[in-house]
Amino acid sequence: MESKFEIAAVGYVRSPLADRKNAPRQGNEGAPDVDIEISPEFEQALDGIETGQDIWLLTWFHAADRSTLRVHPRGELHNPEVGVFATRSPDRPNPIGLHRTVVLDIGKCRLRVQGVEAIDGTPIIDIKPVLGAPESKCHDKHL
Amino acid sequence: MESKFEIAAVGYVRSPLADRKNAPRQGNEGAPDVDIEISPEFEQALDGIETGQDIWLLTWFHAADRSTLRVHPRGELHNPEVGVFATRSPDRPNPIGLHRTVVLDIGKCRLRVQGVEAIDGTPIIDIKPVLGAPESKCHDKHL
Repeated sequence: MESKFEIAAVGYVRSPLADRKNAPRQGNEGAPDVDIEISPEFEQALDGIETGQDIWLLTWFHAADRSTLRVHPRGELHNPEVGVFATRSPDRPNPIGLHRTVVLDIGKCRLRVQGVEAIDGTPIIDIKPVLGAPESKCHDKHL
Repeated sequence: MESKFEIAAVGYVRSPLADRKNAPRQGNEGAPDVDIEISPEFEQALDGIETGQDIWLLTWFHAADRSTLRVHPRGELHNPEVGVFATRSPDRPNPIGLHRTVVLDIGKCRLRVQGVEAIDGTPIIDIKPVLGAPESKCHDKHL
């Protein structure tokens, strides 16, 4: 069975966060609003996204260590080591970031979104609408 | 800037759903409970996941059409065509499936999880804990 696939960036995060060392661990921990620049070839795929909408942003943590299988959660040694699938560590076999955010503004091939902890230049691999109701009442804005 | 990345299956969905034609469109639309078989090389990464836990399952829709940029939502022609990033269509540039589910049982390199619409043999690319509280009160169990 096929087990390797090629993933292609559809755009990049433009953020004041320059490196991972200074990035918050989650979007609701003081992360800045960022711009999502989508490559022109994927412009049509944005059609229908609206200002104020809750979306999932999927990123590729290009600076991650993909050989890591166990970590101390949040990098703190007093937290007992667990498997990476039980954590949100960016170090994992397929370093996909899952960010829940809100669309603040829309331009040509560009979305301004709220509070994302990914560093400048992080590749965007997918955008999806948040489904279900009444999610706006949930307290998990920044999964 | 690097724009292509290799993603590797860490396991596969074992489901009674044999093909996409018969699969529900979302996990809360009658999808069966499924087994997640993780390859032995990634066994350690599962450590710490618990029965009853809410998790995100990320899959690779291997049967998707990656050239699709616009769709009629849910495949229904009376729904006006929109960009795939505004929908949960499996046909999209990087056909990643995002499934919120609950761990029902845990075995060696295996998780039994609730209501997932992915077909048998769908590659698993990541597993993450659902973060934030009080998510159990949200009505979005199957994003």
